Amino acid sequence: MLLRMSTLFLRTLREDPADAEVPSHKLLVRAGYIRRVAPGVYSWLPLGKIVMENVTRVVREEMNAMGGQEVLFPALLPREYYEATGRWAEYGDTLFRLKDRKGADYLLGPTHEEMFTDMVKGEYSSYKDYPVTLYQIQTKYRDEARPRAGILRGREFVMKDSYSFDLDDDGLKRSYEQHREAYIKIFDRLGIEYKICFAMSGAMGGSASEEFLAPAPNGEDTFVACRVCGYAANAEAVVTPAPPAVTATQPPLRVLDTPDTPTIESLVAYVNEHHGLDVTAADTLKNVVVKVRTPGVKEPETLVVGVPGDREVDFKRLEASLSPGVPEIFEAADFERHPGLVRGYIGPQVLKELGIRYLVDPRVVAGSSWVTGANEPGRHAAHVVAGRDFEADGTIEAAEVRAGDSCPQCGNPLAIDRGIEIGHIFQLGRKYADAAGLDALGPDGKPIRVTMGSYGVGVSRAVAVIVEQRHDELGLVWPREIAPADVHIVGTGKDNQIEVALGLAEELAAKGVRVLVDDRPGVSPGVKFKDAELLGVPTILIVGRGLAQGVAELRDRVTGDKQEVPLAEAAGRVLAAVSS
Amino acid sequence: MLLRMSTLFLRTLREDPADAEVPSHKLLVRAGYIRRVAPGVYSWLPLGKIVMENVTRVVREEMNAMGGQEVLFPALLPREYYEATGRWAEYGDTLFRLKDRKGADYLLGPTHEEMFTDMVKGEYSSYKDYPVTLYQIQTKYRDEARPRAGILRGREFVMKDSYSFDLDDDGLKRSYEQHREAYIKIFDRLGIEYKICFAMSGAMGGSASEEFLAPAPNGEDTFVACRVCGYAANAEAVVTPAPPAVTATQPPLRVLDTPDTPTIESLVAYVNEHHGLDVTAADTLKNVVVKVRTPGVKEPETLVVGVPGDREVDFKRLEASLSPGVPEIFEAADFERHPGLVRGYIGPQVLKELGIRYLVDPRVVAGSSWVTGANEPGRHAAHVVAGRDFEADGTIEAAEVRAGDSCPQCGNPLAIDRGIEIGHIFQLGRKYADAAGLDALGPDGKPIRVTMGSYGVGVSRAVAVIVEQRHDELGLVWPREIAPADVHIVGTGKDNQIEVALGLAEELAAKGVRVLVDDRPGVSPGVKFKDAELLGVPTILIVGRGLAQGVAELRDRVTGDKQEVPLAEAAGRVLAAVSS
Repeated sequence: MLLRMSTLFLRTLREDPADAEVPSHKLLVRAGYIRRVAPGVYSWLPLGKIVMENVTRVVREEMNAMGGQEVLFPALLPREYYEATGRWAEYGDTLFRLKDRKGADYLLGPTHEEMFTDMVKGEYSSYKDYPVTLYQIQTKYRDEARPRAGILRGREFVMKDSYSFDLDDDGLKRSYEQHREAYIKIFDRLGIEYKICFAMSGAMGGSASEEFLAPAPNGEDTFVACRVCGYAANAEAVVTPAPPAVTATQPPLRVLDTPDTPTIESLVAYVNEHHGLDVTAADTLKNVVVKVRTPGVKEPETLVVGVPGDREVDFKRLEASLSPGVPEIFEAADFERHPGLVRGYIGPQVLKELGIRYLVDPRVVAGSSWVTGANEPGRHAAHVVAGRDFEADGTIEAAEVRAGDSCPQCGNPLAIDRGIEIGHIFQLGRKYADAAGLDALGPDGKPIRVTMGSYGVGVSRAVAVIVEQRHDELGLVWPREIAPADVHIVGTGKDNQIEVALGLAEELAAKGVRVLVDDRPGVSPGVKFKDAELLGVPTILIVGRGLAQGVAELRDRVTGDKQEVPLAEAAGRVLAAVSS
Repeated sequence: MLLRMSTLFLRTLREDPADAEVPSHKLLVRAGYIRRVAPGVYSWLPLGKIVMENVTRVVREEMNAMGGQEVLFPALLPREYYEATGRWAEYGDTLFRLKDRKGADYLLGPTHEEMFTDMVKGEYSSYKDYPVTLYQIQTKYRDEARPRAGILRGREFVMKDSYSFDLDDDGLKRSYEQHREAYIKIFDRLGIEYKICFAMSGAMGGSASEEFLAPAPNGEDTFVACRVCGYAANAEAVVTPAPPAVTATQPPLRVLDTPDTPTIESLVAYVNEHHGLDVTAADTLKNVVVKVRTPGVKEPETLVVGVPGDREVDFKRLEASLSPGVPEIFEAADFERHPGLVRGYIGPQVLKELGIRYLVDPRVVAGSSWVTGANEPGRHAAHVVAGRDFEADGTIEAAEVRAGDSCPQCGNPLAIDRGIEIGHIFQLGRKYADAAGLDALGPDGKPIRVTMGSYGVGVSRAVAVIVEQRHDELGLVWPREIAPADVHIVGTGKDNQIEVALGLAEELAAKGVRVLVDDRPGVSPGVKFKDAELLGVPTILIVGRGLAQGVAELRDRVTGDKQEVPLAEAAGRVLAAVSS
C-alpha cells in the first residue's frame, strides 16, 4: 500500500472543531479522519476508513478464531420482531422508527437479539445442531438523547454483535468464557487498556454480565476497582456489603421539633445541639419518593427508597435496580395526590399504612436505629428502628458509591474510576428464546428451550477509545496494527528530497510495508512534521536536510526517539521497526 | 480457510421458496446463502456473507487501482442536503423518510451525490487539489414500489458509488473513461457477461451516460443491440433515425366518417374499404394525451404525444424523455375539463388553437401525410400533412422500440434483449456543484465551477446476477474468485472416508486453499452430492467408495467433468485446479 499525500483526500486542521470537547473528537477531526454530518452521525475520510477497516479485521479474525460464524442482518427491520419481545415500546425515543410507502412500521436496528433468535429458529431444529455462535459487524442506530464526543457516542455506529445458542447453562457458560477470552485478545491487539467489570443487566433481561471498560477521564461510565483483590464493577453493579444486624435494645422512638433544618447537615447539627443526640449524617435515613413506570402497565407505582443521609441516591444505580421499570421524579402535583407523604419530612413509619412500597439500602439492617422524618411538617423522629418502627419491603442498590467504600469481595477500600464501555458480554438466558419459542428437539424427542448469550464490541467507538488512551499533545499515536500506515515518509521538498522519499516509499511498499509518503510540493518542512505528528503513524522517516550528508532521520511516534540513519540503511531500519 | 459442514450454520432446502420466481432468488435461498426478513430486505448467512465479501474485495481492488479513494458516509442523512437539490421532494415515495426524537427530518440515503459534493467542498479549495475520485461501498435504501426477485431489486442493498471531481469537461471525460475501464475489469473478474449500453440520464440531470447491462431473461431493462456494428443502448436511450422530409405535394385534408373503428386495425380496414385509401397502421398517427408533473410546479401540463399507429407509446421511454417531468395518465375527469380533446378522435390539427403542446415521434417529418383523428366523434381525417395541417412543437422518443428497427449507427436491423443493470457511469456535469456552490479557486484567482461524474456498481445485486447467468439445473456455479470456497471436499461417511477427507482438507487449507469440507456424520452420499452441486463451489473432491482402491473423484462443477485420481495425488490435483 502506498498513499501519496500529494493526491490523498486529506486536509488537516490547525484548530479544534468548535463542537469538540474530548481529545478523540478533536484529533480525529483535525487529522482529517472523520467529518460530522449531523449530531452523532459522521463520515469517514480515507485515513479514518483504513483505521476502521483495521479494527474490523482484528475483531473478525478473533471472532472467527473462536468459532464464530459471520452473517449480516439488515438495519431496516420490520416492527413485528420487536413487538413480540416488547422492545418496540421499551426502547422509547431511542429507537429510530419509520414507515414504508405502504404504511408498514419499520425500525433501524439498535441491536439484533430478536433477529438472530429468529434466524436460528429458521435453520436449526435438532439438539445435534447446537451449540452455535453467530456474529455480524454491522451498522446500528440509536437515537441517543445526548449524542456526544464525536464517534464515542454516535447515533449511527458500527458494532460487532454476536449471540451464542446453547442447550444448557453449562454450554452458555462455556460460550461466555470463549467470548471473554476472544475479547481479551481483541482489546489487547487493539492496544486498548481495559478493566473487566461486573455489570448489571439493565434492559437486556438476563443474569451474568461483564463489561470491558476502557479507563478514560472522559468516560461516561463510573466503575469501582479494588486495588487489593482486583474486583471491578461498574457503579450500577456494585453490591453493598450489609453490616450485621443490630441486636442491642434501642431507646423508644422520639418525635422531635426540628425547625429550619432544610438539609441533612442542618438537621444533624440541630438534633445534636437541641435534643442531646450524638449522630452524624450516616445515622439519618433519607427517604426519596419516585414514580416507577413499568412497560405495559398504565399507572406508575409510587415507591419510597431509603438511604443513609450521608449519601445521595444515584439515579443510574436506581434505574439499573428497577429495570425494566423506569423511575421518574415525584412532582409537586404527585405530592398533592398523596397528602400522607409530607414533603421533606417523610419517615418510613407510615408507609405500610399508606400502602406504599418501601425499599432500603442494604445498610439499613434489622435493629439499626435512625433519625428520619416524622411525617409532620417541621418534625423529625429519632431512634426509629428497622424491624420495630418500620418494616422495609426489601433492599435496593440505589445509594451512590464512594471512593473508600468497602470492596464486597475483600473489604478493602474501593477506588472509583471513569471509563468507556468498549465491550459487553452477557448471559442472556432464555428471554429471547422464550419470546420466539426457540426449542431444539432433544434426543428423547422432547423440546429443549435454547439459552443464549449476547456479546458486543463497539467497533467505531474503539477507534475513538484508542485515541482517548493513546494521543499526546502533538496528535494521534496509533498502535501499529490499527495505524493507517506502517511508516510515514516525509520528503521535505528541497533539492531531490521528495524524489528520494518517493523512491524509498516504492521500495518499501513493494516489500509489503504500508506506506504514507508526504510528497507534497511547496509545503514547508514544519507543516509536514506537524502533520506527521498529528496523523499518528507509528514510524516516521524524514528525508530532509540530512540528505546532502547521506542520512535520513527515523522517528518513533510513540517514544519520540529520533535517530539519524544512513540512507542506504533507511529501508532496512523501517522494515525492522515495522516487524518489531 | 477451512469450513466444516458439520458445524457450518447452513441448512439447504429441497424446495424452492414460495415467493421466488427467478433462479437467483430460488437458488440463493435454497442453498442457504440468504434469508428474507421483509419485502426486499434480506439477511446474509455465512456462505452468502463470504460471497458478498469476495465481490466487495474485487470492486475495492479495482477502484483503488484506478486511483479511487475510499470513504464511508452514513446512511442516516439530514434532510437539508437533499432539500438543496430538490431531491427530498423529487424522490417521492422511493425515499425512506424518518424523524429523530427532536422532530428533525432525516432520510436513508438512496444515493449520495449531495454528500460527496459537500465533502469535497469542505476539504478542497484550490484548482491544484483536483481531480479527485472518491468512492464508498455502502448500504443504500430505496423504498421500491415493487421489490422483487430476492436481492435483484431490494429495498436495502449494497452499492459501490463513486464520484469524480474535475475542473473541466476534458477532465470529466478522462475520469469517465477511467471508470469505464475499471468497470470492465470488475465485471470481467466477477465473471459477468455484460453489454455497455448508451443510457438516458433520467432523474440524474446530466449528459453522457452508459449502463452495464447483464443480459438475462429476467432482466427488468430492455436494451437494443446491433449485431453488425455493436451499437447497444437501453430502450430509453434508443435514438430513432428520422426519415428524410417529404417534398411531394399531398392531396388536401379529407374528413371521413369512420363509425365503429375502435382500434387502429379496424380503422385501417375501414378507410381502405370505404374511402378508397391504401394505408397501413404505420400510416396512421396515434395521439396520446398525458399530464406532466414538473417538480416544484403545482399544476400539471397537458401534453399530446403523436406516434405512428403501428407502435405503442412506451411509458418508460416517455418518462425518460420527459424527466425530470413525470407523465401521468389523462383521466376521464381530465377529458371533461378539455372538451376540445375528443377522446378516441384526437388529431393534431386543433392543438395549437387549444394551446396544448404537441410532441411527435421523429418519423413524423415535415411533409409526411397521416390518417388521424378529426376531433369529432366517429370521424377521422386523411392526408393530414405535417407542416401543412399541423405544426409539432418538437420531437420526442416515446414510441416503443421493436426488433428489426434500424440501428441509428449503421442502419442494420436491431435486436432486442433483456438485461439487468449492474453498473452505471454517468457524466453528471455541474448540477450538484451548482446546487452546493462547489468551486475551485483558479490560478488567476477566479472560481472554477467543478464538474462531476457519478458511477455505481450494484454490489449485492452482482451476487444475484452472477447466479442468473451461471446456474444450472443442479444449483449454483460460482466463478472461482467469487465462490465461498475453492474446493468442496465430500467425505461420504462410511469407514474412514470422513477422516481422510478432513485430513486432505487440513492439508489444503494449510497451503492457503479455501476449503469447505462435508464432514457431516450420518448424512447419505446422495444428499452430500446434491448439496455440493447446489452450493456451487467450482471444484469438488469426493472421498467415497473409491477410497478402498486408493482413489478419490475430482469433479469440475462448471464442465461436469469427473476424474478418478489416486489419493496421493488428490491434494496436488486440487491445487492445480485452484491455480488454473
